[in-house]
Parts: sequence; structure tokens; C-alpha cells
Amino acid sequence: MTTAQTQLRQRLAELTDLRHAGQLLEWDQQTMMPPRGSGVRAEALATLERMNHELFIAPETGRMLDEAQRELNGTDPDSDEARLISVVRRRYEKASRIPASLASDMARASSVGHEAWVKARAASDFQAFVPYLERNFELARRYVEYLPEFDSPYDALLDDYEPGMRSAEVTRIFTELKNELKPMIAAIASVDQPDDTFMHGRVEIDRQRRLVAEVLRRMGFNNSSWRLDEAAHPFATSFGRNDVRLTTRWDEHNFISAVHTAMHECGHGLYEAGIAESLQRTPLGHAESLGLHESQSRTWENFVGRSRPFCRMLAPLIRELAGVEVEPDPLFAAVNRVTPSFIRVEADEATYGLHVVLRYELERDLIEGRLEVRDLEHAWNAKFEEYLGLEVPDAAHGVLQDVHWAGGSIGYFCTYALGNLIAGQLWERAGQDLPALDEQIEGGELAPLREWLRENVHRHGAKFSMAETLQRVVGGPIVVGPFVSYLKSKLSEVYGPGVLD
Amino acid sequence: MTTAQTQLRQRLAELTDLRHAGQLLEWDQQTMMPPRGSGVRAEALATLERMNHELFIAPETGRMLDEAQRELNGTDPDSDEARLISVVRRRYEKASRIPASLASDMARASSVGHEAWVKARAASDFQAFVPYLERNFELARRYVEYLPEFDSPYDALLDDYEPGMRSAEVTRIFTELKNELKPMIAAIASVDQPDDTFMHGRVEIDRQRRLVAEVLRRMGFNNSSWRLDEAAHPFATSFGRNDVRLTTRWDEHNFISAVHTAMHECGHGLYEAGIAESLQRTPLGHAESLGLHESQSRTWENFVGRSRPFCRMLAPLIRELAGVEVEPDPLFAAVNRVTPSFIRVEADEATYGLHVVLRYELERDLIEGRLEVRDLEHAWNAKFEEYLGLEVPDAAHGVLQDVHWAGGSIGYFCTYALGNLIAGQLWERAGQDLPALDEQIEGGELAPLREWLRENVHRHGAKFSMAETLQRVVGGPIVVGPFVSYLKSKLSEVYGPGVLD
Repeated sequence: MTTAQTQLRQRLAELTDLRHAGQLLEWDQQTMMPPRGSGVRAEALATLERMNHELFIAPETGRMLDEAQRELNGTDPDSDEARLISVVRRRYEKASRIPASLASDMARASSVGHEAWVKARAASDFQAFVPYLERNFELARRYVEYLPEFDSPYDALLDDYEPGMRSAEVTRIFTELKNELKPMIAAIASVDQPDDTFMHGRVEIDRQRRLVAEVLRRMGFNNSSWRLDEAAHPFATSFGRNDVRLTTRWDEHNFISAVHTAMHECGHGLYEAGIAESLQRTPLGHAESLGLHESQSRTWENFVGRSRPFCRMLAPLIRELAGVEVEPDPLFAAVNRVTPSFIRVEADEATYGLHVVLRYELERDLIEGRLEVRDLEHAWNAKFEEYLGLEVPDAAHGVLQDVHWAGGSIGYFCTYALGNLIAGQLWERAGQDLPALDEQIEGGELAPLREWLRENVHRHGAKFSMAETLQRVVGGPIVVGPFVSYLKSKLSEVYGPGVLD
Repeated sequence: MTTAQTQLRQRLAELTDLRHAGQLLEWDQQTMMPPRGSGVRAEALATLERMNHELFIAPETGRMLDEAQRELNGTDPDSDEARLISVVRRRYEKASRIPASLASDMARASSVGHEAWVKARAASDFQAFVPYLERNFELARRYVEYLPEFDSPYDALLDDYEPGMRSAEVTRIFTELKNELKPMIAAIASVDQPDDTFMHGRVEIDRQRRLVAEVLRRMGFNNSSWRLDEAAHPFATSFGRNDVRLTTRWDEHNFISAVHTAMHECGHGLYEAGIAESLQRTPLGHAESLGLHESQSRTWENFVGRSRPFCRMLAPLIRELAGVEVEPDPLFAAVNRVTPSFIRVEADEATYGLHVVLRYELERDLIEGRLEVRDLEHAWNAKFEEYLGLEVPDAAHGVLQDVHWAGGSIGYFCTYALGNLIAGQLWERAGQDLPALDEQIEGGELAPLREWLRENVHRHGAKFSMAETLQRVVGGPIVVGPFVSYLKSKLSEVYGPGVLD
């Protein structure tokens, strides 16, 4: 490496260390911290964020980027060195327009908002949460004011979570997706549902833990480099490929949910654990596109976890470890039931898309001034009834269910549904490359799929955008087709041929 | 507050936030982190330490101190404002001589050394640990080279843990202490020991947890502001008064040790939890003198936890929660047995002092060039046999038992024995101020003692040095007498009158 590149690497390594500390403060807040620690924690997070931001946008960082770029000198533009510079430059040019004080205010409001949300959700009291949410939207609006080159405020925010993606494209994709999902859900509403009562018997948490541990072990979880903890809103985070932290929640009357949630978070974890050693302690060493990230969690939770071959593997484990008698076919049918319900993270694969579209539309209205925060609960409930046909009973089952807005993550939700679509495209391609995939899954042999994903997606970390990754792996842009075909095909197995025609 | 004071406060608050992040990285490393996370964790710690150090020693901090000091203008020198400036100035003048790169190297070596120690201790292999320990001593020697105003290298290090204390005084005190302890231990060696077999029956960890939780609750632990976790080497840390973290370890065959260890760490925690609200998020908001800190842990572990009144309270709890049949008087006798043993943290109150004196003498020899690290195991074993009459069976029961040197804490050990002496002096004074103390403890009413300690010690945080605190509370310097009187009086109860005369 040249001197300039070494200097740049050193600066970026320090920034990665600061990120590491900030992420640990957040992980701890959601898993370990005693509740009254929240005040000083918010301050610590704000200080770390401000220091991170100031160090990143320092003119020196710009000079280091310029010099390192000059020294690239015809290096392959897809090499680690060249991509590091281009990715960091893009982020630098966006971040350097944001004052450090605003970055710090946003970090503090995120932490404070999270604590307020925990309380408001417990009390199912949206009005108590309104001032915190207003603060987060106000800060987001101040943020986008510094980024006038985007066509809309929403685009400026979305670009942080899905670099290069614009809302015009999301809206087009989501319209197509809605048009596919609505008739599917309506058709299923008129037929008999598979029985799933066995899923809701009481299973002690300790037995669930053993079942989940076994499933995660087969996916690649090991105690040398991974942890699993409990959190109100499950998430995954990592401090490099050798320290991956998953969280889940436990419900004595829903042991299957524990399995699927853990598989989901482990899918995120495998992405982080699969990033190349050469990218560690650089900004490319953490995945950037949330759509790609979600494609990994949904691949494992749904494409694998709710597949018939996996159910054949899982049923005996359920009998042995959870003590619940169930055969593979009824398990497969039960875990693929499509029924409108209130909670996004518990939604089936068909209604899930509508949960996301609803949030996407509402947060765009909020940030672009067509909806006031104080009117959000009403708007949520109205749209929910329109899309899912259910009357929301209270805020905890409606507008207060998700952590994202509380933590200031606005423009994030749409990446969940994009993740499903991307997963559909990657799954189609993986099936072509791994002709024995079904047999492998049924045999509990999950390594071939994991290694295929590592080779094609994980190892690159943040080197390539979501669009670039899809271009490289499937040879085209994000589209709705493969996901819808996958879903229709599976639901036809569950509900019988003809129902979805 | 004046402008200069506000600016200084802001800078110090940010430094406290960085300390918060660094302490969390360390807490997590010892309680939660998967083992393979240690590499990047060491780097993150080093970066945080360097940033903290650079921000602290920046010339701007010096100017802020100067300006804030000018504006004090006759403020009471014992006020929060004046003490903040004098304490910070003392630290600033010492720290500003140390290059940030050295501070960062020491933080990294501390984290790396900790991981190496965990492995070496597990394998009981001192030679594997030698290079790491040599590195820590080499860095410590480089550190003291920047501080030539101290009479000896050891003094420069000791001053970080016990500001103002010098080894000449420690040596004088320790000589007196050794001369008191050796004949006590010898006298007891020739008489019958109380029976303690009941302490070593198997008690399930869950039952131990319930017993410990009840004892801690009575001391002031609550789930809103405290946590208790497991660590190989128990410690306490805090992120302000509302987030106090204790750690302990569990042994199925030593439930009493769990109680005493937890009380010890809770004593540390009560100190941090008792610091005044006005000092939070300032450098005075964490206790500084390790001798004072240890006096608090030893007060609760020994002066309270091994007292006859406390045993009267504890025996019924042991019967109820741990399911072990024991009466108060045999409990009192058993927990006060004096017998030479290998492990410092399990040592009784009499032999404990010799464990510490041994470490103090060895680390002085090491840092001052009279002993090589590679010869340390031999030197340890020889001195151990001389002081405690036992042949050390392996490194895990000898030189590798403690975490301190592995983490670069050199000059720290003596504060443990100083803590016992300070506790003796405070205890004598507390007994005068709280004439019903014995009855209160027996009745499980621990708040009066806790509030006395808070009023006299805790609330001041780092405002006063150990010597100043003793002067304020007992009216004199640190002395050996009260501790020895307390110990002789208690051991005469255990072993009968006449044995210690």
C-alpha cells in the first residue's frame, strides 16, 4: 500500500473503532442496561456520534481521500482499494454537509426516543410518544435541508439506508407488489386454513432455547464468535466478523416464532460474519445496503425456514427438543398460513409486504409535510383497515409496534420489502447453482447455501451497492417477479392448486 | 456558572462520555464478548484511550482550566467548582506529559494482555504469559520515564491509583502490618479450627442467586439501576450513579463465597451509586482513590458480612433460600476462620494482608529492575512459602491468579491492604456515630450504615483524596491500629480469649 493509502486506512480504522464503541453502547442499551442508565447513555451516544462525525468530515479526511485516489493509478475499480475510496468518498461528500452538532442531536434524540418508545409502547399510549416522534421528524427535516440535491426529502433519507435507491423506483415497485399481493390475500381469505394449534401450546423457554441453539448451530452460529440475547425488538449487530450479536424474544406460547426470529437475525449475522478478512476494520467491513441485509435474514427465515425440506428437518428436532408432536407436512402448512394480523414482525410472507407499504407511505407523508405526527395514529389505523381489513385495537398493536421511528430511522422501512424481492431473485439464482439445495436443506446440510451466499454477497461487505450486487449475481435490477412466483408456488402447495389462479 | 466554567464542564462531560464508552468496552469484554472478538476490541479500546488522552491533554483544556480558575475568585476551595478544577489540573499536569501513542499502546496491551492471561491461567502456564507481562512492564517503564519528578518509578505508578500516596509510607505501614499479622496467624495455626464443612456442600447456582439477590437487595441493589453478571475475575464498574454493574462468580461448592463476593462488589457499587447528582458527568463523578474504594468493598464484605450480627440475619436466609441448615454462631465462626491459602480473593482477613504485601514487594522489584519477569514465578513461589508457609502447586494458584498485571495495572495491589486499614478507621468512627449499628445489622436494617458512608465518603466522589477524606472523617492519617484492634477482637471471639494475647 502507498503512504496515502496507509494513512487513509488508519483514519478509517479509527472511525470503525468509534463506530464499534457506539454500536456497543446501543447493543447494551437494548439488551443489558438498567433502565435508569438511559440519561447518561444518551449523552455518551451523542458525544461518540459527534466525534465520529467530526473526525470523518475533517478536511484532513478529504485530503487523505484525494491523495489515496491519485495513487490508485489504474488499479482495478472493483478492487478493495478502489472501492474503499469510492464508497468512502460518497459518504464523505454527503456527511460533510451535516453539522456535527446536528449529528450529535440526532444520536441523542434517537437514544432518548428509544426509551420513550419503550414506555409508551408498554402503556400503549401514542400521545405520550408524540413529542419524541415530532422531535425525530423535525431533526430529519433539518438533516435533509442540507441535502437539496435530492429530488425529495424522503430520497435523501432513503439514500442513507439504501444508497442509490430513489422513492420513484420504490413507489413503482411497491405498486406492482401491492397489485400482486392483494388478490392473493383475498383469494386465501375465502378458503379453509391449515391447523396451527400445535404451535401455540406452552413450551418452556429453556426447551425453546435448546431448539433454537440447535437450529442456529446448523446455520453456523458458534460460541467463539457469536452471542444470542433477549431484546424487546430483536436485532443483530456485529463488531467485525468474529463478534456477532443476535437478539430474540421468547414467548411460551409461540415456540415457532422463536425459531423463525432467531433464523432471521442469524441471517443478518451470517452476512456480517461472512465479510472478507481484508475488509475488517474498514468501512467496507460492515454491510451497507439494508435491502441486501434484509434479503439475507428473509432468505433464512422464510425461503429456508418455511420451506418443506426444512420443515422435514425441523419436525423431528421439535419433537426431540421442544417435546411437541408434529409431522413435517402439517408443520409446513402451519408456518405458511396467510392471515392478516397486526404485528409486522409476526406477519406471514404475503401480508408482510402490505405492512411495509403502509409504513413507507405514512413516513413519506410525514417527512414531506402531508401528515402531522399528532394525526399519525388515526392515519395508521385508517390505512391498516384499508390494506389489511382489520381494526387496530390499540397503539401497541398499531403505530407503536416498531422501534424504527423512535430511534430516528426514517426512510428505513421500505428496505424490508425490497429485501424480500432481492431474496426472491437470489434464491432463484442459488437454486440454479445448487441443484441439490432441497436435499441438502432436508439433510440439515446448510453450509452449501451459506457458502454460496458468502461467495456471492457476504464477502464483499459494502463494496457493491444493492443494484451492483444484483447485476453481478442475477444480471439485472431489482424486480418483483421472482418473489411473487416463489410465493405463489409455495402458497399453492399450502392452499391447493387453483386457489391462486 | 461563568462562561469559562461552562466550557470546561462541557469538555469534561465529553471526556466522561468517552470514559463511559471505554468502560463499557471493558465490561463487555469481561462479561459478554465472544472470545474471538478480542482482536478488534483491543484496537477499539486503544483508539478510545488515545482520543480520550488527546482531548484531555489538548492545550485548549489547559486554557479552559486557567480561565475557569481565574473566574473562581475566592470561591470556597472545597466547593464542587474549585475542587473540580484542582483535581482536573493535577491529572492534566500528569497526563499532558504522556504521549497519546503511549496511552493508546498501553490500552491495547491491556486488552491483549487480558486475553492472554485468560488462556494462560486456564492452562496454568506462566511461560506462555511472560511476553505479554514483559510488554506491560516495558510500557509502564516508558510511562514513568515521562514522570521524573517522582522519587521512584513505583511512586509514579502508585500515584495513579492512590493520588498523593508514596511507597515510603506504604512500606512503613506494611512493615507494621506484617509485624502484627504474622504472630496472629502463627498463634491461630496452633489451635483447633471451627468446623466449616456445611459451607462446602453442593448448593445449586439458582438457589445461590436467590440468596445473593436478597442480600444485595437489603444493601440497596435494585433492578432499575444495577446489574449483576458473571466474570472470571469479579469487579464492579459504573456509568454514573444510575447504572452500576457488579460481577461475581459462582461455585456450586462454595455458596458463602458467592455471598461475600457479591457484598464486596456491591460495596464498590454503593460508592459509585452514592456520588452526588451534582458531580455526575464530571471527573469527580467517579471515585478516584482505590484505597477508599476498597475500604467500601471490604467494609461490606468483612466488617458487615463477617460480623456476628450479620450472621444472625444471614443464617435464616441461608436456611430458607439455600436450603443449608446452619445456626448464626457456627456461621460466624466458620466465615472467620484464619488459614493460609493460595488465592488472594478467597483469603481470610488476616492472611489477606500478606497476600497483598507479597504482590507489592514483587511489583516494586519488577518495575525498579531488581527482578526479571521471566523469574517472577520462582520469586512468587519462594516468597509465598516464606510468608504463608505453603508450597504453590501451580501458576494458576500462584502468580497467574490475578488479572491486574495482565491488564497493565501495576502499582495497584497495595491499595487493597490500604483499603482494609481505611475500613478499620471508618468503622471505628461509624460505630461512634451509630450506637445501634449492631442491632440494625442484625435486624437487616442496612440503610443507616449505607447513609453514613454516603454522607461521609460516597457523595464526594473524587473531590477529596484518601488522606483528605480520612482527615475529614476520623481526624488523622491512615494508620494500622484500628484495623488490627478490630481483627484481634473478632478473632478472639472465634478462637477464644487468650489465643491472641
